[in-house]
Amino acid sequence: MNENLILIECKDNVGLVAIISELMAKHNLNITAMREFVDQDKNTFFARIECAGLLDDETGLQLELQKILPLESKITINPKKEKKVAVLVTKEYHCLGDILVRDTFKTLGGHVCMVAGNYDVLKPFTDRFGIPFHHVSHDNKSKQQFEQELIQLLEDYNPDYIVLAKFMRILSPEFVARFEHKIINIHHSFLPAFIGANPYRQAYDRGVKVIGATAHFVTNDLDEGPIIVQQTTPVNHTFKASDMVKAGKEVEKSVLSKALQLVFQDRVFITGNKTIIFE
Amino acid sequence: MNENLILIECKDNVGLVAIISELMAKHNLNITAMREFVDQDKNTFFARIECAGLLDDETGLQLELQKILPLESKITINPKKEKKVAVLVTKEYHCLGDILVRDTFKTLGGHVCMVAGNYDVLKPFTDRFGIPFHHVSHDNKSKQQFEQELIQLLEDYNPDYIVLAKFMRILSPEFVARFEHKIINIHHSFLPAFIGANPYRQAYDRGVKVIGATAHFVTNDLDEGPIIVQQTTPVNHTFKASDMVKAGKEVEKSVLSKALQLVFQDRVFITGNKTIIFE
Amino acid sequence: MNENLILIECKDNVGLVAIISELMAKHNLNITAMREFVDQDKNTFFARIECAGLLDDETGLQLELQKILPLESKITINPKKEKKVAVLVTKEYHCLGDILVRDTFKTLGGHVCMVAGNYDVLKPFTDRFGIPFHHVSHDNKSKQQFEQELIQLLEDYNPDYIVLAKFMRILSPEFVARFEHKIINIHHSFLPAFIGANPYRQAYDRGVKVIGATAHFVTNDLDEGPIIVQQTTPVNHTFKASDMVKAGKEVEKSVLSKALQLVFQDRVFITGNKTIIFE
Amino acid sequence: MNENLILIECKDNVGLVAIISELMAKHNLNITAMREFVDQDKNTFFARIECAGLLDDETGLQLELQKILPLESKITINPKKEKKVAVLVTKEYHCLGDILVRDTFKTLGGHVCMVAGNYDVLKPFTDRFGIPFHHVSHDNKSKQQFEQELIQLLEDYNPDYIVLAKFMRILSPEFVARFEHKIINIHHSFLPAFIGANPYRQAYDRGVKVIGATAHFVTNDLDEGPIIVQQTTPVNHTFKASDMVKAGKEVEKSVLSKALQLVFQDRVFITGNKTIIFE
Repeated sequence: MNENLILIECKDNVGLVAIISELMAKHNLNITAMREFVDQDKNTFFARIECAGLLDDETGLQLELQKILPLESKITINPKKEKKVAVLVTKEYHCLGDILVRDTFKTLGGHVCMVAGNYDVLKPFTDRFGIPFHHVSHDNKSKQQFEQELIQLLEDYNPDYIVLAKFMRILSPEFVARFEHKIINIHHSFLPAFIGANPYRQAYDRGVKVIGATAHFVTNDLDEGPIIVQQTTPVNHTFKASDMVKAGKEVEKSVLSKALQLVFQDRVFITGNKTIIFE
Repeated sequence: MNENLILIECKDNVGLVAIISELMAKHNLNITAMREFVDQDKNTFFARIECAGLLDDETGLQLELQKILPLESKITINPKKEKKVAVLVTKEYHCLGDILVRDTFKTLGGHVCMVAGNYDVLKPFTDRFGIPFHHVSHDNKSKQQFEQELIQLLEDYNPDYIVLAKFMRILSPEFVARFEHKIINIHHSFLPAFIGANPYRQAYDRGVKVIGATAHFVTNDLDEGPIIVQQTTPVNHTFKASDMVKAGKEVEKSVLSKALQLVFQDRVFITGNKTIIFE
Repeated sequence: MNENLILIECKDNVGLVAIISELMAKHNLNITAMREFVDQDKNTFFARIECAGLLDDETGLQLELQKILPLESKITINPKKEKKVAVLVTKEYHCLGDILVRDTFKTLGGHVCMVAGNYDVLKPFTDRFGIPFHHVSHDNKSKQQFEQELIQLLEDYNPDYIVLAKFMRILSPEFVARFEHKIINIHHSFLPAFIGANPYRQAYDRGVKVIGATAHFVTNDLDEGPIIVQQTTPVNHTFKASDMVKAGKEVEKSVLSKALQLVFQDRVFITGNKTIIFE
Repeated sequence: MNENLILIECKDNVGLVAIISELMAKHNLNITAMREFVDQDKNTFFARIECAGLLDDETGLQLELQKILPLESKITINPKKEKKVAVLVTKEYHCLGDILVRDTFKTLGGHVCMVAGNYDVLKPFTDRFGIPFHHVSHDNKSKQQFEQELIQLLEDYNPDYIVLAKFMRILSPEFVARFEHKIINIHHSFLPAFIGANPYRQAYDRGVKVIGATAHFVTNDLDEGPIIVQQTTPVNHTFKASDMVKAGKEVEKSVLSKALQLVFQDRVFITGNKTIIFE
């Protein structure tokens, strides 16, 4: 039996579930899992529908859905399954390592098309996996020049998502706007907390008993885009700042991988500065 | 605006969500939250529907639902909001304490009508809350006599749920059958693990690094009914058996309270030996 | 066998553990658990020593310790076991409830001598436990007058610790200075995060996936004293701000109780703006 | 300044900490971190001492320690820092992947000298890291023959530890005895729980709400050696058995890596069927 995935985002209205599921039934599509949520602050309806059945006319269904749903509805039928992913790195390996291992065994939910770094230290490691590594140095370049090179490279590959796997350069509003809702970052802290340089040192100085990490979409609010996953891990007074870094990296790795899986399986919707996640 | 709650449990079928939501729309009920799940092993459909709107003819809606749903569907419209709860205890206070405090401030999701204990040590404590305490001793009685007394007492109060808040007597199959799916127990361990007497001693002897607790419905499989909530907490080599007991009590208290809230808000469905929980 | 507890805080030095444990042996005190830690940033040594044996001359041991340890060492032999505790509240019951239940069954590690509230809503509840409740209204009073009344009351009881169990008034530097290292607060968030009014609303607006709570000593840095315990709990997009409040209360209750137990068992040392905790 | 590590395991006695730390001081070794624990059930004293200072006569210190400590004490001064590690696998990559990435960046706390598998599916992956992979098939061999080949191979490499990274063959008592306290396994469950084949299926059938994993030393009690690390992760009714497998793998990976780091840093002592861990 064919499995289909339908994503809907539209203005809320009475009876939306009824009219959608009725249409599914009419097309002999059996809903096997349906998740919906209404963001009442924004009066917006979100649905993720898995349904089984032969869907021979996707365009037809799309048109019919458009007709019965409110104006300006966003409807996606059977989104691309294997997302194409570009990874940007600086020097730290822990997130990249986890991504490349999963990529090798096809459990990432997407495929890494390339890795680019503003340093080249992770090139030998990336080479082991047979993935192209591009060294785009920021040295002796204006920010604009540097980003222009990066954009050129990204446009050549045309990825569905750009993952900042400990990429330590702040991206300009122009860059971010160009890839709206397509850039995923891992932040070394919960948000909001210890924003800025050396957050683990800040956490150490503050004597916190819990540290964490946040995966989020990048917007032009630095470190402040819609949060996808957050997790925490306990620490105590015996942790030096370097131990906090080490514990933090474990959480970062785990949080980013979890977030990527959710996004690549089309389980994450963005509503304003928040996410809705149909796990 | 009136808020309504509708619970449905029936054989699975194509288009169930459509026909249900259509009927809601016809009655001018706006679905504000709908959760459904199909247990594919048992081919059973479960739904919990919150809808807003004036529902002036509950019986009518019930009949219409019966007509459009498969035979032998279980339909509940606006279940009793304030569950009546009887609590059975032995000597330990920690779960009872949490229940009575929540009861006092009306955040339990139900109302404690009485506490019964096979010892009377918790009577003075229960008295503080103005809740009747019944001492039903098991001394010098056959199990049957003891349970007969308990049943009599419970039938006088006619509670919706019976909570075993560290009640240390094993109930007979007859007792359990009489209150099917209405008895909730807190088990001092995960399940399955360390079944039998003195589980924390067993955990200590085994040198475990994690302990936990399980809240479950009681069936005639001892300690083996459908699980509602499980949680764990880390322990280490410095924990004596008594420290494990102490840490365990914290988890028990928290797990039982969580389970009661879920059950009393009609978020828990039983399917075979498992639960479906619409949190 | 008598059990003794010795607490030491002094400048670090080579061989401290040796000279301390040698002295214990000389007094026929068998060390059953010894925890020590050196805060290298502050060059300070902390030790918590449990030892078994008849200690007939506490003053003598104290003097001998003073002689062999660096100048200005802080030495405590057998600190008061049952701490006297005053609780300040406003309107929320969840932390107070947990404290009073534990107090009733003597598992708090201290004894609640009184509860004071700037509102009287928790008086009937406190009365159930036979604990004096004092209503110290802040209405129509200057902050200074209000605090003066509170100080008077506290001085009458002379508690070892003052617990702010959701006490919603900001205390003046004078008040805090008067009870240095004796005031424990529960903060409705991790620190640093969402400081200020209505933090759960802020967390909701930000779409966080984790919320938490922090128990800390109160210093004149608002919400910024040494952290004792922090815990977090996952939330998701289905949580309304009110659900976050509810989930947050569970964490607050649990975090505060844990912190009180640690402090009352003399397991918490303060070093600058941090704590060292010998669990 | 030179950093030294001293490990002691001996019969308990009054004043052990004193005489040990005195000897350290005499050798001008400044104790920077000392952890000790007495297993009172077995009357055994364990200590892990980090000390700074020039230790020019290790043998002399060893002899002096032997003289002052009880007979048959086990004393290790500056154990080998970089453990040599052999990894045994079958077909699953997730634990191996994490180990090899950490190995590449030298954060494993040891060095992987070889990987052996009873299948060869993980050979191409291992090759990427430049680590020798040996295919030791169990096909058409008696268990004894198979293990003899494995032992031969292991003896050629002479590793400090053997990691069973999802190695799905049960090892004979003879094999286990040959590498006593040197074999570390990751078990797909907590212990004790769901022992035997297909534990995630069992967990699914039982409707558990929490799953976990256990890293432990292998003894001749199958799946029952001293536990090093256990962790759990929540699951719910929407998890199919395959989702539980997936969630379980994440925990397994994380638990095994954590356990390896602890063991390789000489933080784990074995006492009977338990571990003492100085984190």
